Amino acid sequence: MFRSQIKVVDCTIRDGGLLNNSQFSTELVKAVYKAVCEAGVDIIELGYRNSKKMFSPDKYGAWRFCDDALLKKIVDKEKYPNTQIAVMMDSHKSEIEDIIPREESVVDLIRIATYVKDIDKAIKISNHANQLGYDTAINIMAISHTIEWELDEALQQIEEETKVIACYIVDSFGSLYSEDIDFYYYKYKKYIKSKEIGIHCHNNQQLAFANTIEGIIKGTNYLDATLYGIGRGAGNCPLELLLSFLKNPKFDLRPILEVISKEILPLKGKIEWGYHIPFMVTGILNMHPEESINLMKLDESSPDKINFKDFYERCLDTL
Amino acid sequence: MFRSQIKVVDCTIRDGGLLNNSQFSTELVKAVYKAVCEAGVDIIELGYRNSKKMFSPDKYGAWRFCDDALLKKIVDKEKYPNTQIAVMMDSHKSEIEDIIPREESVVDLIRIATYVKDIDKAIKISNHANQLGYDTAINIMAISHTIEWELDEALQQIEEETKVIACYIVDSFGSLYSEDIDFYYYKYKKYIKSKEIGIHCHNNQQLAFANTIEGIIKGTNYLDATLYGIGRGAGNCPLELLLSFLKNPKFDLRPILEVISKEILPLKGKIEWGYHIPFMVTGILNMHPEESINLMKLDESSPDKINFKDFYERCLDTL
Repeated sequence: MFRSQIKVVDCTIRDGGLLNNSQFSTELVKAVYKAVCEAGVDIIELGYRNSKKMFSPDKYGAWRFCDDALLKKIVDKEKYPNTQIAVMMDSHKSEIEDIIPREESVVDLIRIATYVKDIDKAIKISNHANQLGYDTAINIMAISHTIEWELDEALQQIEEETKVIACYIVDSFGSLYSEDIDFYYYKYKKYIKSKEIGIHCHNNQQLAFANTIEGIIKGTNYLDATLYGIGRGAGNCPLELLLSFLKNPKFDLRPILEVISKEILPLKGKIEWGYHIPFMVTGILNMHPEESINLMKLDESSPDKINFKDFYERCLDTL
Repeated sequence: MFRSQIKVVDCTIRDGGLLNNSQFSTELVKAVYKAVCEAGVDIIELGYRNSKKMFSPDKYGAWRFCDDALLKKIVDKEKYPNTQIAVMMDSHKSEIEDIIPREESVVDLIRIATYVKDIDKAIKISNHANQLGYDTAINIMAISHTIEWELDEALQQIEEETKVIACYIVDSFGSLYSEDIDFYYYKYKKYIKSKEIGIHCHNNQQLAFANTIEGIIKGTNYLDATLYGIGRGAGNCPLELLLSFLKNPKFDLRPILEVISKEILPLKGKIEWGYHIPFMVTGILNMHPEESINLMKLDESSPDKINFKDFYERCLDTL
């Protein structure tokens, strides 16, 4: 049994790009695109469309900017007409001048990631992108650090002032439990009447997949996931688990398993994601993962790297 | 907020022993015992009390048998009076002659793991152990492979014919979703009126912790977990996550984090557990993990080891 309104969004290259400054090879992105399309996934997000004024192209790879010329090297709409192309713009790190008219682009959906404080910037980008012909969505980050009335007001603005197709619950710190997902779902539902609700989870507490299921049970229809859970820190909801849960006959797990074998597993050892105690510690404390990411980057010879009790106590001191 | 009836059971040495034939050093078990007691965990299971006629002591370590003399080297009831000692007996691999009167033992709780087909053996052991003064619990394994009326009958027998303190939902294959936990909880509750219901989850789909939370929300009060999730295949519900969720002020996370750093993390590389695609494949297919464990044991140089698509297709052929 499945719900036909559900749209699965693969964010492997976009969220995974936070691990390596978006420096994936064209071959890897091609292989991921092919596998995700052949698996029947609805939408693939190929990276950020962020501003080159704010991110140096010397330091960041091409998938941090997703120029249309670059995307055209990857995307084959004739072969894979059923998978839409998304890019993400950070509301505070992007410029509307970087959006060209949709008919000149292979992008279908522009997702705007925003903090509540920047909601007006996000709305401006969303409306501009709609005028140029794109679908849009807004992902509200770090909601677990938001004062409640500000989130309420942002949700009301999104409902009244935008034409987004979805507004996302984002568990940026991997701190939410299923009861929190319920809480946020009903809060969103109170304001978001004419759009879909989406969910994007992080795996600090091994709850990214479970919380996505909880979102599905409640009614979220836009679901973010990545191959083998790749993503910042502890990573995201694993796409292979989500597709298997959804039971929609249009999905085929084989290409997903194959590309994990060939392209994603070999990244392990070079870049690190998944369940580790430092990520768990920031997750249970509802903290930004930066400190845990820094700890994980320490050299193997550093005794601090696995002194989890000290790390926990240091984190407690910063609350 | 917490529920005072909840008992947390650490099974690190018992379930972890399935990874290394229970060959832990006395020093490691001592360190785990100390940390688990100091963290305020209610019960620690120190291994199996299985029959030496069925498991060769040449091949299996002392924690597969848990002789009372061995346990007395570890357990310090004066120092740690609040943590009870458990051992597990497999109903089809144990002998009641191996149980001595409780006043001669440091064991408080004997847990009997059983398939539904062996429920009468389990009941016999349970009643015998009660007569000798022990508390008992029954863990019904592999319920997702059970014909429903047989499970119903077993539950009725446990309610009517035993004095166990708890009867467990066991997700042996890591195949259950939260909706399945709800289904089994209500089924158990229909029959099990005078005892507690417990939950023991495996992590093939990264749902062990989430399903344990689902059990808590419904009403299970005996909760199994292990340090860093160590356990057969994908492992179990991580104790560090569970204690953090429970919010009971008697729990202290620090000793748990410290023993993970010093004793459990160093096991990685020697023995393998956690989320891996082969375990995920048997989990989503509701299969015994044996085939995935065999695949994981292949040498790194074997191309089969990471050919996940082929493994998935081979598994599909065996359904």
